[in-house]
Amino acid sequence: MSTNIRPDIALASRLFDALREKTFDGLGVTREAYGPGEEVAHALVRAEAEKLGLEVTVDFAGNMYMTLPGTDRSLPQIILGSHLDSVPQGGNFDGAAGVLCGMAVIAGMKQAGFQPKRDVTAMAIRAEEGGAWFNGFPGSRGALGSFKPENLALLRRDTGKSLEHHMRELGFDPDALREGRKVLSKENVHAYVELHIEQGPVLDAEQIPVGLVTALPGNRRVRAGRIVGEWNHSGATPRAYRHDAAMALAEFTHRLDLFWGELDADGTPMVCTFCTVETPEQAGFGKVPGEISFSLDIRAPEPETLDRTYAEIDRLVAEISQSRGVSFQLESRQESAPTPMDAGIREALRQSAEALGISYKVMPSGGGHDAAAFAQAGIPSCMVFVRNQNGSHTPLEQMRIEDFAEASAVIAGWAMKAAS
Amino acid sequence: MSTNIRPDIALASRLFDALREKTFDGLGVTREAYGPGEEVAHALVRAEAEKLGLEVTVDFAGNMYMTLPGTDRSLPQIILGSHLDSVPQGGNFDGAAGVLCGMAVIAGMKQAGFQPKRDVTAMAIRAEEGGAWFNGFPGSRGALGSFKPENLALLRRDTGKSLEHHMRELGFDPDALREGRKVLSKENVHAYVELHIEQGPVLDAEQIPVGLVTALPGNRRVRAGRIVGEWNHSGATPRAYRHDAAMALAEFTHRLDLFWGELDADGTPMVCTFCTVETPEQAGFGKVPGEISFSLDIRAPEPETLDRTYAEIDRLVAEISQSRGVSFQLESRQESAPTPMDAGIREALRQSAEALGISYKVMPSGGGHDAAAFAQAGIPSCMVFVRNQNGSHTPLEQMRIEDFAEASAVIAGWAMKAAS
Repeated sequence: MSTNIRPDIALASRLFDALREKTFDGLGVTREAYGPGEEVAHALVRAEAEKLGLEVTVDFAGNMYMTLPGTDRSLPQIILGSHLDSVPQGGNFDGAAGVLCGMAVIAGMKQAGFQPKRDVTAMAIRAEEGGAWFNGFPGSRGALGSFKPENLALLRRDTGKSLEHHMRELGFDPDALREGRKVLSKENVHAYVELHIEQGPVLDAEQIPVGLVTALPGNRRVRAGRIVGEWNHSGATPRAYRHDAAMALAEFTHRLDLFWGELDADGTPMVCTFCTVETPEQAGFGKVPGEISFSLDIRAPEPETLDRTYAEIDRLVAEISQSRGVSFQLESRQESAPTPMDAGIREALRQSAEALGISYKVMPSGGGHDAAAFAQAGIPSCMVFVRNQNGSHTPLEQMRIEDFAEASAVIAGWAMKAAS
Repeated sequence: MSTNIRPDIALASRLFDALREKTFDGLGVTREAYGPGEEVAHALVRAEAEKLGLEVTVDFAGNMYMTLPGTDRSLPQIILGSHLDSVPQGGNFDGAAGVLCGMAVIAGMKQAGFQPKRDVTAMAIRAEEGGAWFNGFPGSRGALGSFKPENLALLRRDTGKSLEHHMRELGFDPDALREGRKVLSKENVHAYVELHIEQGPVLDAEQIPVGLVTALPGNRRVRAGRIVGEWNHSGATPRAYRHDAAMALAEFTHRLDLFWGELDADGTPMVCTFCTVETPEQAGFGKVPGEISFSLDIRAPEPETLDRTYAEIDRLVAEISQSRGVSFQLESRQESAPTPMDAGIREALRQSAEALGISYKVMPSGGGHDAAAFAQAGIPSCMVFVRNQNGSHTPLEQMRIEDFAEASAVIAGWAMKAAS
């Protein structure tokens, strides 16, 4: 048994190329959840796992487990995983990198003749890209028994058909999700580690290849915000007589931005985005807008930050409603608490990086990931970010294979100890 | 000859009712320019003018002149007029009130046995509601020879056909507009006075029935504004890495609003409206918007105010472009200078109001009107506003007939002297 496992980067690299080729859409890649692109990706990865001689199983939600058996199969397993679906016209690495890392680490174990004590599984999760397709993580939450059954009725944007329909079409079992059956739990999973490209620019800007994640953010979301004022003639209505919805939103937005600037200057992590802004069809040149809609996305790794921000929002809404004679409607509010990653795993990953001489940054995640579902199920979980260029959810997304290799090596070093 | 002419308000009232009845669209009135509704209105008014025994003529643009002949027909005439078209689902008084005022005053002259020295004409102008239908005032500017020929190609929104097509369809002569032929000029028009509902809420709020207008506003318009930043992941992109187009627009809007607040506190008239605001289709929850479009409408009765405001806009654009790393595109800029109304006529109208004991407010107009075309042609012109409830360009628009009677009486008092 060697003291260092070298992940099989050539295998991962070959699979990245095959995935790109088979799911290229002319601009980026499209691997729609429970659709043809995701199916192709699962088939490609499965074939490689079978070649490696791994045990391959698929659960009722369609998640695939590729397992190197341990010497004591009664021990809780280690899972290295992520998702294989993508947003439409997305990048090749978002999701897939975590699955291929798992395979590269396991292939490296086999090549090194390393025999783990507990099962080590590469997991290909279904349908993580909720924003554009479904909501609610039917893959990871399905396996963990924490999927909300009402989400089975959600429609996929491109087909207009329900999640339940698409699952059934591929032979999976939405009734198992409805009943909350569990494949995975803290009883049978020792640890979950997910490699993922960083979706932001921080590692690239700071020239660091690897990120060790402290927490997944909680969020406060207003998916359907609206300000209602009064429609008026834009020439003939003096300032004092206006109830301009667009001016009210501009004040709200800019003052919240100034508040964010103060938090940021103090080093308190938070992001605040007005993702969409729109005056209704009734608006037009020559009219004071009497209505405007918006969506607002606030995320932070600390609950206190979310609370402070919401208190500021309440203060601004009250003040601006009063001063401008408009009313705010903050509908479709969603809240989720931040999810801390396991400090023990993070420290072990840090030691692995130190031992390998790989530089890393300890950082919060900006986006949500399947790892949150695992951590919330009580399974010790952590994420490792890989430096990435040009953002994510875009065909321009980029990741250098050398950086992927360093992050995979950090995980392999940890996994070897954790599985011994 | 009596010393006071009493406008025939019963006649006007009857015509208002008939107009509403014949052009009601189920919600408001619709009298589309060079379309069925405007035709109906012209026919109704023409029939009444013929009953009164007035001379009725129609020019190549379709404007109708209903004239009480003066004793010396070689003298330049007095015109009391406005337009008969409306916006779709508009109110009954916007435009029509000025035409019916002219008829009520002339009917009052006849009833009083007043014989003017110069012709007094009630003019029903075509196609003033440019915003929703055509642009460029084909009625008034057509008669004055100042219509821009390229505007003949403009399309009516509801039919998709050109102005030229619709004029020809009704037997009018767009070639005359193209050649800039004139029916009216400062040589044959002594004065133009237009009664119009106030399109804003000022007279109603201040409980004054009549407004005497100092100037029609000039404007600076940005019909197609755009800010381009960078699309990013809303969770994973920290503040320092963002180029958020929506945040940039919010800062621009709110700071311009604060500047306006300072002008307003100094009593400098100006209005500033972001009429439409829209993130593009690409925008969606979870993305930092990399682009946003807007339109901006700035109006003021003093050219210096427009200049100061534009200087502030330039300053803000330069500063925000720099600080946020975004670029502003201010396309389809349009400028027009303010048009002062004739001070001599305004003073004479003021004396008329004083003599009648009718309270009035001297005020700028917020909207543009046909009177601008007359004034720009060198014809002494003025406007009289009537108090109005619930704004204009809406079925809710309202005007009390008593207020119309007072404004018409002020005009009648002036017209009697001016025509003597």
